[in-house]
Amino acid sequence: MNFMVSEFAMDKGNIIEEEDGDGEIQSFFNSAPPLRNNGNDINAKLECFNEMNINGGRRRRRRIVCVTSGGTTVPLEQRCVRYIDNFSSGHRGATSTEYFIKAGYSVIFLYRRGTFQPFCCSLPDDPLLQLQDSYSEAVKRAIADHHSMLRMIAISFNKHGPNAMFYLAAAVSDFYVPWQTMAEHKIESASGPLNMQLAQVPKMLPVLRQHWAPKAFLISFKLETDSKILLKKAAAALEKYKMDMVVANELSTRKEEVVVVTRTENIRVRRDMNLGVDDDVEHPLIQLLVQRHSTHINTNSDLC
Amino acid sequence: MNFMVSEFAMDKGNIIEEEDGDGEIQSFFNSAPPLRNNGNDINAKLECFNEMNINGGRRRRRRIVCVTSGGTTVPLEQRCVRYIDNFSSGHRGATSTEYFIKAGYSVIFLYRRGTFQPFCCSLPDDPLLQLQDSYSEAVKRAIADHHSMLRMIAISFNKHGPNAMFYLAAAVSDFYVPWQTMAEHKIESASGPLNMQLAQVPKMLPVLRQHWAPKAFLISFKLETDSKILLKKAAAALEKYKMDMVVANELSTRKEEVVVVTRTENIRVRRDMNLGVDDDVEHPLIQLLVQRHSTHINTNSDLC
Repeated sequence: MNFMVSEFAMDKGNIIEEEDGDGEIQSFFNSAPPLRNNGNDINAKLECFNEMNINGGRRRRRRIVCVTSGGTTVPLEQRCVRYIDNFSSGHRGATSTEYFIKAGYSVIFLYRRGTFQPFCCSLPDDPLLQLQDSYSEAVKRAIADHHSMLRMIAISFNKHGPNAMFYLAAAVSDFYVPWQTMAEHKIESASGPLNMQLAQVPKMLPVLRQHWAPKAFLISFKLETDSKILLKKAAAALEKYKMDMVVANELSTRKEEVVVVTRTENIRVRRDMNLGVDDDVEHPLIQLLVQRHSTHINTNSDLC
Repeated sequence: MNFMVSEFAMDKGNIIEEEDGDGEIQSFFNSAPPLRNNGNDINAKLECFNEMNINGGRRRRRRIVCVTSGGTTVPLEQRCVRYIDNFSSGHRGATSTEYFIKAGYSVIFLYRRGTFQPFCCSLPDDPLLQLQDSYSEAVKRAIADHHSMLRMIAISFNKHGPNAMFYLAAAVSDFYVPWQTMAEHKIESASGPLNMQLAQVPKMLPVLRQHWAPKAFLISFKLETDSKILLKKAAAALEKYKMDMVVANELSTRKEEVVVVTRTENIRVRRDMNLGVDDDVEHPLIQLLVQRHSTHINTNSDLC
């Protein structure tokens, strides 16, 4: 297995080009905080596992997955002291990546700095992976051209047709404070209660489905704390965003079981208790996904 | 040097006893989220450095400091998916602790799990320190009796009179969502913008000064992003909370310089650039604090 690591910042520039035609998303990225391109501030990284398998080898049977992992944050002040975060540790994305690699997939792993990484749970934040300069430069160029990581990956995935999978496990922020309305300085605590209005982050899933990777096998996640509404919300997301599958998980049991929601069925997937603590729910989950991806590839083989 | 480590949870119980007489604070702790007493949920730990020096040795000249370190978070949902955090890494508290120990102080280090720890910057989250069971049990008992860590430490410090110092470097949350008004489940993102009203966290500094440790040498911190208001706000805090010193730091330069604000002067303290990256601003800062603590001890020697 080859590792390749490249590190860069997302840019707030024109992530959506004109043909994507979504004013709300364009407006969101235009009003997002500027991200700085230095080592301390970059909080997103890209890693490619099984890279030789991506660019060479048996072209026809090659399978590739983009895994997004970890949470995102939104600042409450322009000179940020406080921010809204979420509980995500990146465990789901990192563990799933291990099983995708074992299943022979090439994996693009897009994660937040400091969150779990595949095969590196006991290593420090920045494991020493081999840096392949040529690729690193290509990524930097793409970013300098005002493209986002996800868009860049999606479009480069397009040539793989139905062989490409997106496994969107990252817990992205739902709400944010637009840059123009954000306090510049640390918000004063002496002047009474704080009223905050948070805007909704526009959804990228429709753009991914319709414009960036229309032929890919798309899997999104739905996490809720209320099991009564979980499956309904997962089914609604499946329909609304035209996903191939939605993985529904409840906060308190997410490490034990998930429900994979498709257009025709709800499949409950549980961690194998007989295997003890060494097993995890991602093991049977990725097995199921690989099977269904095979069906997707066969059904859409004319698109290859 | 002896290390001792003990681990426990703060309890939302009666942190303020009747004699403290502050309804707002009592109400805050009564409406705080319940904290769970298991290894995964505990995010505060207590460590004692130079413990032998605390309980034995030259009684008359013994000096002791309680250092609080790292940030705190406030949940936005009862079954917490999202929370408000702040940038604090605990670097100030951990580095300062090293210099206090070098200056011969006994140190109680109260920090958030996962933040920097003295002498352990390159070690994993839970360095292997010697656990002294007898002390651990005493701490657990105190907590079970519904006392907070800070209160327990403050009251046990009282016998040290002016020899005790509190160095309150932790970045505690200024705003919170009261438990009763907090959404139980993950807040829905589909129903438009989110309006949040955050209440002010009541200040503990007056209680510490007036009730818990009236004779101690008290140092609090003021961090701002706007240098124009920093010194004014630090001076206001010094006056309002009857601190002995307020360390004023600006977000962007906090690792290079701070200003120590006292009733009679503002003392600018800078990292020694001649010593290169190996030095830090905490080095001259703790030197200054130790000198001023000596003056405080001499001035108040009748209280020893």
